[in-house]
Amino acid sequence: MSAIKIIKGGVTAAKSFRAAAVFAGIKPGNKNRKDMALVTSDLPSVAAGVFTTNRVKAAPVRVSISHLRAPRTDAVLLNSGNANACTGPHGIVAAKTLAGAAAKALRCALRRVLVCSTGRIGIPLPVDKMTDAIPGLVAGLSADGGNAAARAIMTSDTFPKEFAVEARGEGGVFRVGGMAKGAGMINPDMATMLCVVTTDASLTKKSLQNALHSVTERTFNRITVDGDMSTNDTVLLLSNGAAGGPIIKPGSPDYTLFVEALHEVCLKLAHMIVTDGEGVSKFVTVQVRGASGMRSARRVAEAVANSTLVKCSWAGNDPNWGRILDAAGYCGVPIREELVDIYYDGVAAVRGGMAAPTPKERLIKAVSGKKFTVTIDLHQGDASHTVYTTDLTEKYVQLNLGE
Amino acid sequence: MSAIKIIKGGVTAAKSFRAAAVFAGIKPGNKNRKDMALVTSDLPSVAAGVFTTNRVKAAPVRVSISHLRAPRTDAVLLNSGNANACTGPHGIVAAKTLAGAAAKALRCALRRVLVCSTGRIGIPLPVDKMTDAIPGLVAGLSADGGNAAARAIMTSDTFPKEFAVEARGEGGVFRVGGMAKGAGMINPDMATMLCVVTTDASLTKKSLQNALHSVTERTFNRITVDGDMSTNDTVLLLSNGAAGGPIIKPGSPDYTLFVEALHEVCLKLAHMIVTDGEGVSKFVTVQVRGASGMRSARRVAEAVANSTLVKCSWAGNDPNWGRILDAAGYCGVPIREELVDIYYDGVAAVRGGMAAPTPKERLIKAVSGKKFTVTIDLHQGDASHTVYTTDLTEKYVQLNLGE
Repeated sequence: MSAIKIIKGGVTAAKSFRAAAVFAGIKPGNKNRKDMALVTSDLPSVAAGVFTTNRVKAAPVRVSISHLRAPRTDAVLLNSGNANACTGPHGIVAAKTLAGAAAKALRCALRRVLVCSTGRIGIPLPVDKMTDAIPGLVAGLSADGGNAAARAIMTSDTFPKEFAVEARGEGGVFRVGGMAKGAGMINPDMATMLCVVTTDASLTKKSLQNALHSVTERTFNRITVDGDMSTNDTVLLLSNGAAGGPIIKPGSPDYTLFVEALHEVCLKLAHMIVTDGEGVSKFVTVQVRGASGMRSARRVAEAVANSTLVKCSWAGNDPNWGRILDAAGYCGVPIREELVDIYYDGVAAVRGGMAAPTPKERLIKAVSGKKFTVTIDLHQGDASHTVYTTDLTEKYVQLNLGE
Repeated sequence: MSAIKIIKGGVTAAKSFRAAAVFAGIKPGNKNRKDMALVTSDLPSVAAGVFTTNRVKAAPVRVSISHLRAPRTDAVLLNSGNANACTGPHGIVAAKTLAGAAAKALRCALRRVLVCSTGRIGIPLPVDKMTDAIPGLVAGLSADGGNAAARAIMTSDTFPKEFAVEARGEGGVFRVGGMAKGAGMINPDMATMLCVVTTDASLTKKSLQNALHSVTERTFNRITVDGDMSTNDTVLLLSNGAAGGPIIKPGSPDYTLFVEALHEVCLKLAHMIVTDGEGVSKFVTVQVRGASGMRSARRVAEAVANSTLVKCSWAGNDPNWGRILDAAGYCGVPIREELVDIYYDGVAAVRGGMAAPTPKERLIKAVSGKKFTVTIDLHQGDASHTVYTTDLTEKYVQLNLGE
């Protein structure tokens, strides 16, 4: 029996976290959908964050990075409809004003509030409307508010993304749960992945940051739909210790368990994001093995996963291994063509750089599935890397033509 | 008055070059279109070549690189319908067999024949059919054969690509002319750019190679449609000295003139390739300036030109500068958001990293054209780079779904 079990709920599944959502009318014309969310902890909590590495960083990203330097974090304020990106110094002021309004309503210090925005780039936030909505948000906070919050941060997402687990460790039971919204590919105007995870396990800020960093590396940093990286991407993790167990120390069995639980939540949310990409018809796992090093493995996997031609062939149920080999060849890794094997769901398409003697029907069958794995064995070493991606459909292009 | 004028013709525009095309039936079902071409020089000629940097190189690329080590080159044998790529040792034997058959018919040494193939990857060449067709090819060679050859190397190209110029230098008049076929994006199964340029100017093999290298860098290496790079990409340049002038020496005014003429031919052919990309509706010039170095300028230009989201917005006539700034931000160049200006056809969309006060209609008008220029000024230095690219349309995806 596994020590980790899936439970209902999301960002408020862990004890003493509450959430709420309200309609502020951020995006003109978006009349009925709630567009602001707040997540808070009843107990003092510590937080960790991983942010976009894009040089162009949205104002809320800059403000949250700065606020995360504070030892404690009490809340995360989120909005959809406007990314508050490429808005200059005014954008920073707007993000701080909102954090300040939330801090005032929650009676905590400004730096204890983190902010996340997603939506159109380059348009000033309607700050007044948003500050006006904050008292209502605070009044609505509830332990059942996780789902409403997950819905309020949706942009073109077709379903709210929530997941939670409960783990039984040596120091007792703790929970990890989170919510997310989809990434760049989903819609050009709302090009952001946001994720907030909470836990009632007790960890130091430093351990929390290390755990989040390593898990993000293996989950959210391994999904790619179109290779574009947003200015707003943010993953936050809050720990309030409400489960009552002792502090989980790095290196302990409970730390391993915690990282495992966090990994399960983040991986599930990452997969949901990929699956919900607009116009996406397939979920493809690209697995590179036999690489001479980690970097090479990653580079090949990403080149294949981001190749427009490879992705189009998947949409067309075409087991076109030539395009896969081509992408592996141009990504700058010194692969040796004559050593490369390629498989679709374990069925050999290429052996030693040439067509394998597999009946084409079997390959077509594999690539026709809604979910399949492409394995590329470079036979040059022991390193491997996996990325999760999608096909590229006409619908994707149609959805991304613009306004 | 410029010393260079455009003339009719293509690969046989220069004196003493001949070409021919025949139907060999390389691709099953392709019943009527000529699929093999031959270009020869009546006088001994020297040749230069630039090839794909993909680690996966097609057999004809490997054989041509080897044959180019010979001091003289008499002919180039080309085919469409089959790329002879990922075909292992048999592919090399096939390419050499074909070069040998052409050498025999032309009564020259094997190494004086270069080979180019384009078409489906991973399928053995029908060598017998092709060798049978070679005597007919040789018999058909003519100074008027350039257009037939340009047509025979077409795959999904919608028009033959030919261009030629005549230059009047100090050492007399010389001509440069060439033919090309489209690049990777055009059709997944025929993912190759091929180009053969001839000149009756007289140059040493070494000067020829230097000239071709520098010109390719500024022309064919600056076009991108989908970021995919083929296993077969080849640009060849043959010089036979038939114009009668003295050897053109590097550093001389005539060398500068020759490079200019070669540049004009290659740039025109490169633009034709971009314009003829299947599903392409726009020709976009992406110009980066104010970069801190050449590499940075190139990186930003290529990231913008290859961004799926940016390309989709162009297809949709959406002046979405946020996606451009986003792509510039994630490509690894330390740009400073607050310094960046972006223009569509000279109309400011972004000033200092924020929306410029330009009426949106003016931006929409610019991006709605069939041809426009996006200029990104990083204001960090003096380096610049230009790439030529296209939009990304639903039709592109539809054409690339597979067989």
